[in-house]
Amino acid sequence: MPQIRVALAQTNPVVGDLNGNLDSCFEFVSRAANQGAQLVLFGEMVVTGYPIEDLAHRESFVRKAQDATYAFAERLEKAGLGEIAVVLGHPALAGQSNGWAIAHNCASVLRHGTVVGSYAKHHLPNYGVFDEHRNFVAGDQLLTFEHVGFKFSTVICEDIWQSGGPVAQLGDAGTDIALVLNGSPFEVDKDDRRLGLVKTIAENHGCAVAYCNLVGGQDDLVFDGDSIVVDAAGSVIARGRQFAEDLVLIDFDSNGGANLAAQASVSKADDLWQIWNALTLGLRDYVQKNGFKSVILGLSGGIDSAVCAAIAKDALGSDRVFGVSMPSKFSSEHSRTDADETAARLGINLRTESIESYVADFEAKLELSGLSAENLQARMRGVILMALSNKEGHLVLTTGNKTELAVGYSTIYGDSVGGFAPIKDVEKTLVWELAKWRNTFASQNGEVEPIPTNSIVKPPSAELRPDQVDQDTLPPYDELDSILDAYIERRLGRDEIIALGFDSAVVDRVIGLVSIAEWKRRQGAIGPKITPMAYGRDRRMPITNRFR
Amino acid sequence: MPQIRVALAQTNPVVGDLNGNLDSCFEFVSRAANQGAQLVLFGEMVVTGYPIEDLAHRESFVRKAQDATYAFAERLEKAGLGEIAVVLGHPALAGQSNGWAIAHNCASVLRHGTVVGSYAKHHLPNYGVFDEHRNFVAGDQLLTFEHVGFKFSTVICEDIWQSGGPVAQLGDAGTDIALVLNGSPFEVDKDDRRLGLVKTIAENHGCAVAYCNLVGGQDDLVFDGDSIVVDAAGSVIARGRQFAEDLVLIDFDSNGGANLAAQASVSKADDLWQIWNALTLGLRDYVQKNGFKSVILGLSGGIDSAVCAAIAKDALGSDRVFGVSMPSKFSSEHSRTDADETAARLGINLRTESIESYVADFEAKLELSGLSAENLQARMRGVILMALSNKEGHLVLTTGNKTELAVGYSTIYGDSVGGFAPIKDVEKTLVWELAKWRNTFASQNGEVEPIPTNSIVKPPSAELRPDQVDQDTLPPYDELDSILDAYIERRLGRDEIIALGFDSAVVDRVIGLVSIAEWKRRQGAIGPKITPMAYGRDRRMPITNRFR
Repeated sequence: MPQIRVALAQTNPVVGDLNGNLDSCFEFVSRAANQGAQLVLFGEMVVTGYPIEDLAHRESFVRKAQDATYAFAERLEKAGLGEIAVVLGHPALAGQSNGWAIAHNCASVLRHGTVVGSYAKHHLPNYGVFDEHRNFVAGDQLLTFEHVGFKFSTVICEDIWQSGGPVAQLGDAGTDIALVLNGSPFEVDKDDRRLGLVKTIAENHGCAVAYCNLVGGQDDLVFDGDSIVVDAAGSVIARGRQFAEDLVLIDFDSNGGANLAAQASVSKADDLWQIWNALTLGLRDYVQKNGFKSVILGLSGGIDSAVCAAIAKDALGSDRVFGVSMPSKFSSEHSRTDADETAARLGINLRTESIESYVADFEAKLELSGLSAENLQARMRGVILMALSNKEGHLVLTTGNKTELAVGYSTIYGDSVGGFAPIKDVEKTLVWELAKWRNTFASQNGEVEPIPTNSIVKPPSAELRPDQVDQDTLPPYDELDSILDAYIERRLGRDEIIALGFDSAVVDRVIGLVSIAEWKRRQGAIGPKITPMAYGRDRRMPITNRFR
Repeated sequence: MPQIRVALAQTNPVVGDLNGNLDSCFEFVSRAANQGAQLVLFGEMVVTGYPIEDLAHRESFVRKAQDATYAFAERLEKAGLGEIAVVLGHPALAGQSNGWAIAHNCASVLRHGTVVGSYAKHHLPNYGVFDEHRNFVAGDQLLTFEHVGFKFSTVICEDIWQSGGPVAQLGDAGTDIALVLNGSPFEVDKDDRRLGLVKTIAENHGCAVAYCNLVGGQDDLVFDGDSIVVDAAGSVIARGRQFAEDLVLIDFDSNGGANLAAQASVSKADDLWQIWNALTLGLRDYVQKNGFKSVILGLSGGIDSAVCAAIAKDALGSDRVFGVSMPSKFSSEHSRTDADETAARLGINLRTESIESYVADFEAKLELSGLSAENLQARMRGVILMALSNKEGHLVLTTGNKTELAVGYSTIYGDSVGGFAPIKDVEKTLVWELAKWRNTFASQNGEVEPIPTNSIVKPPSAELRPDQVDQDTLPPYDELDSILDAYIERRLGRDEIIALGFDSAVVDRVIGLVSIAEWKRRQGAIGPKITPMAYGRDRRMPITNRFR
């Protein structure tokens, strides 16, 4: 019975780094060849990284990506790898004028030193974080090719999430194995939805399916890998690692069967493990892909900054994380000792810069009190972090969580300063859960618990005035997060939320706060998306807006 | 010969203010009725304001907008205005589930107390600043209705910018007068392009065309009005005012002819007049629609802050503009006197807050020098402006121009602080042109020239170190703006720009600066778009991006 060994190469490209990305592809093809692979499948747009956003409109960019794809085919041939069919994603010109490109989102098959076939993505997602109707034009033809006695067809990502189009032709085309190139960003629970879709394709069209996803952080998106292979009966044969590069090898037979040839297998992990790893990978890749050596953040002794510091340590190692304790006259004793303890537990760098004298000086000269004096304290901390960043080259992390961002419970140009916001898409109640999970994970592995217990259990406070706690100003976080979930994630209206049993005055207040914080969110740092409705590209709202 | 009097009501709605917008519509219908109008045409989405962005996905919002439209029809009927056909734009539900709406962008005809017909926009723009493929689903039917013996058909904005669709049916439908509802934002030279399109519709389909645009600022967009009426031969009969509400009345006859009945006519203005008025209207509406009473800005004595102050004064009146001079030890004598003179010429409020002692304090304690000390100065100014804003309630204006924004020649959380950036889309060379134009305009009208001559003629400097001028760091602004025009507006690649005759090292440097400033632009304030490629929604680029 004829057999073919197929490799899924789950790589981590950098947007715009054509040479670096193709060097990585070359290494994966070589490794796969050494293990007997006859076909190597990569992710969507692996040549350019993904998403390329409006770079797709730049003719010089698309042309270079196309040329690089052809040059890569030649390089494989010269290296004696030309017998292998390599299937990878890249943009291609569909038209152009005066520097402006009209591009396809393509999958091409490379063999014998050239491009032997190309497929243009049919379904262009234009919802959530995606703007593909803006950036690409659609194709309408399925690509089917024969290789080592098997019939392969290629489709791309969204093509399997929508009905109709080339996917509907998989069966009629006699496809043995469908190759799906993906750039599918992580969201909690999305792994299960992908698996269901892949199984359905196999069952509906009678073909095995190899689903290869990208991995790595790109701005606010985290591609989680987790590539999937199912046989023609829809049974799962293999899954790639989550949050790491991987090479999965599968032997397919001509009866639609498939067997795992080699894979660094992992057992499926729980949601908190996945979220923690998404946040860690998102931060690590932002730092490394943008050429930073280290990060700096304020350590208040509170839960948000402790969790951000722990993520940073897991992402980068303790030497590359710099904490700054910036007490004021309103800082409690525990805020200092908890900050010290966080740094000690994580083994990260820590220094102390009091803001008291700066605050006193501005307050006196500008005659500030109340809110303007509270905001001033946060801004003094922002000035210090940015000064140390400018002086020493660290990326500044801002430690605000999703709940704060929603209701504007932060000082713009104060605690919001920074280039990256590690827990931007993590609501406050989930921050606590993650902290507890990370401590449990540490103790299960015989390691020091990274988050001080006191940072988890004490009532949260901004400490901008005497004896302040967050709940002076905000509803209890359980209630607040529930209302926000109804309003933002589920898009329920005011009346519908009240009908769920919430107090109407609280609901009105929360909706009002969300609305007037829009201008602050618009100026906020990016951070990794982990939910279906992350602030940023998922939710695009007018600032000027009188609807409540 | 049958005649009909048609009114084009060019109004200024606020996004989300359904009641306020319909109150304004009611007033315009009443005025039009008093002048004998039998049909009143409004702009695109006048019920909700435009663009509503992801509010279109919120079922409660779309439902309220639909209900408000029906209630408005009843209100007109009760007021004895039910004989008049009122044509206006609003969103309508095409489907929904669990709080999520799928919406049409509609034009409806109101008569006799109800909605007698609706048209759903066919061509949904999804380029530049538009995300309509994200926010709406397309319709495919032309709406034609008879009124007072004339056949009217309705289409919406983008429908006349693209071929095919319902527009192609205008002639076969026997249309006498095509009604076009628009939400078309201002760009330099766009008025001429719109006129060409409207004439072409008339010529190709043998019908008169009434093109009604919105007016007013909405976040980064400025709708400039400038509504157009052409007769069936394509001759221009009337144009609405630019940058102001207007009611244009036209008598159409059954031979395709048309005559101006009443209109506050203006002669066509030059580009600089248009740009100045776009900037002024954009700022005024942002301030008023968001409930601010006043604005505050730093006055450095330089050209950018002087022009922003003059725009603010023209937008709001001098009483509502607060300037702050914030000298440091590097500030030249002329920077203080020019700031004083700017304030005096404009009659705006001015105070002086020296940053010297604050800077000295931070510098000494944090041991800052070089770039970190330069940025510190800008950040001290940002802290002062934000403190005064928090204390006194002003909107902070940030005075950076498009050229600075392009190459990142600004301090984030320093001179970039603010909720609105009046000259964000004005390149530096155009800032000078505008200053000179505004002075000439003033002297032609017998008024004091608002911008000090010295602010226009002196070499620009950030004054963050001794004897600094911008050209120590940047290429001459003429050259820089030309390179940026080629790279950003025309999307030429590096090699193509060098082929135009620019020095390759300079081109590489500029492209590199543009790329590494992306994270700063992403955190910048919004400001009015006046070009086809404004930073913000027109140009969506990854931050993590190694392509140069």
